[in-house]
Amino acid sequence: MRVVKTIKSLRAVVSEARDAARTIGLVPTMGALHEGHISLIDRAGRHGDFIVVSIFVNPTQFGPKEDFGKYPRTLREDLRICRERGVDAVFLPSVQEMYPQENLTWINVEKLAEPLCGQLRPGHFRGVATVCAKLFNIVTPDVAYFGQKDAQQAAIIKKMVADLDFPLKIMVCPTIRANDGLALSSRNKYLSPAQRSDALCIYRSLMTAREMIEAGVTNPKTIIGKMRKIIGKAESLTGIDYISIVDSRNLQGINRIKAKVLIAVAARFGSTRLIDNILVDSGKR
Amino acid sequence: MRVVKTIKSLRAVVSEARDAARTIGLVPTMGALHEGHISLIDRAGRHGDFIVVSIFVNPTQFGPKEDFGKYPRTLREDLRICRERGVDAVFLPSVQEMYPQENLTWINVEKLAEPLCGQLRPGHFRGVATVCAKLFNIVTPDVAYFGQKDAQQAAIIKKMVADLDFPLKIMVCPTIRANDGLALSSRNKYLSPAQRSDALCIYRSLMTAREMIEAGVTNPKTIIGKMRKIIGKAESLTGIDYISIVDSRNLQGINRIKAKVLIAVAARFGSTRLIDNILVDSGKR
Repeated sequence: MRVVKTIKSLRAVVSEARDAARTIGLVPTMGALHEGHISLIDRAGRHGDFIVVSIFVNPTQFGPKEDFGKYPRTLREDLRICRERGVDAVFLPSVQEMYPQENLTWINVEKLAEPLCGQLRPGHFRGVATVCAKLFNIVTPDVAYFGQKDAQQAAIIKKMVADLDFPLKIMVCPTIRANDGLALSSRNKYLSPAQRSDALCIYRSLMTAREMIEAGVTNPKTIIGKMRKIIGKAESLTGIDYISIVDSRNLQGINRIKAKVLIAVAARFGSTRLIDNILVDSGKR
Repeated sequence: MRVVKTIKSLRAVVSEARDAARTIGLVPTMGALHEGHISLIDRAGRHGDFIVVSIFVNPTQFGPKEDFGKYPRTLREDLRICRERGVDAVFLPSVQEMYPQENLTWINVEKLAEPLCGQLRPGHFRGVATVCAKLFNIVTPDVAYFGQKDAQQAAIIKKMVADLDFPLKIMVCPTIRANDGLALSSRNKYLSPAQRSDALCIYRSLMTAREMIEAGVTNPKTIIGKMRKIIGKAESLTGIDYISIVDSRNLQGINRIKAKVLIAVAARFGSTRLIDNILVDSGKR
């Protein structure tokens, strides 16, 4: 496994792989790898890709009061995981390597970046879209793998790739959960045992929402009200950022459940903000 | 020479050329080709590139009251020129091919897009940067050629390529002028003979500015005042959009002439808006 820190050497490694007629698969991460990331790596492996994992905690997607400084960094463990899973190259750039001069170029994906997390994290998706464009231009992958856990991010990156004609495919892979249902996230490390246990209410609320839709409930407000009750009971809950039911394609609000909907939650436990979502096909047209 | 209208077929043509170990050179144009464009094509030819000329009048860089509808379209003549100059492929997409669905993704290059033409054509450089990113992703050139005539555009595209790590080089080539000095532009076609003659005042004002700097004048206001007088005399002048002397690297205004400066003019004759500029190295540090 090659571990490279500069754009130039990463490009040389990729160019070699391409000369050997390999497809290039990129798994962009911020490190603190867990089973969710591993599922993306394994998916790239099954696809036969030359697997590049990027590990870069991207400052431009964190707000000034967010957790950039304390975001978990577990490099040694991350590299062990990559080695075990057959990753071919790890791209490990410094902030200086990625942003050598004042960055003036920003990519905005309108409409999709506005609801849900966009409302509470202004500039977040601009930073995500911009750093992904950079990584796509550096790694030039044939396929890039993202998790459904970050549903809005996945939708935004897919739209960016389509609109800007990036010559690559975005593969969105299912959310990986702990046995009890909690969606895996690097930020779960922040939770105390009590908070970890409380946080399960998010998953329970999503399952209840699915049952209600399957039982024929079509009013999103009814479902959201029920979810709010379930989550509201958690003792360590410090706030619900949103509970939303939106059209799964354009992420816009809906008045009546139909077709495929995305049910998405962001809530805080102590100072830790967690997000989760499920896609439900209501069967209604 | 291949003339292709779809992204898919253009990619196939480029892929063949790359398999034959050719470097790919892109000359992005809006058609109505003149000696300025030809100089870019010839430059790509001297570089040994597989030359792709794109001809696309990009609607997203025109304001609602601008000349998108009447922009000169001279396709038959353009293709003749391309054939004569040894162009390998002409990419001729429709608006529908380039924007098949509502475009939500926009690239902004802050600071550089604000002064000069950016003040009077809001959204223009956002459209230019976005369509160039699309063309770069479609053609995947090793080199893309731009004219110094559109100095601000060239600076913005260079910065975008650096910031987003596009794997290509931007080559900025000198402005080509008519024998009497008028900078070549597709929009010169709009001018009546009298306006064409009046428009020369722009070039004369730029030459005077150069002489003043060479004579040791360091106050931009003095030079701009003189230029305004020269241009103001033209009978068919309908307005001066700007006369600016800026730092050639960051396009920001300066209080005193030093290092390399860009002297840029935008003025209207009848309903035709013309721009021109020169770079002057004052020798002062």
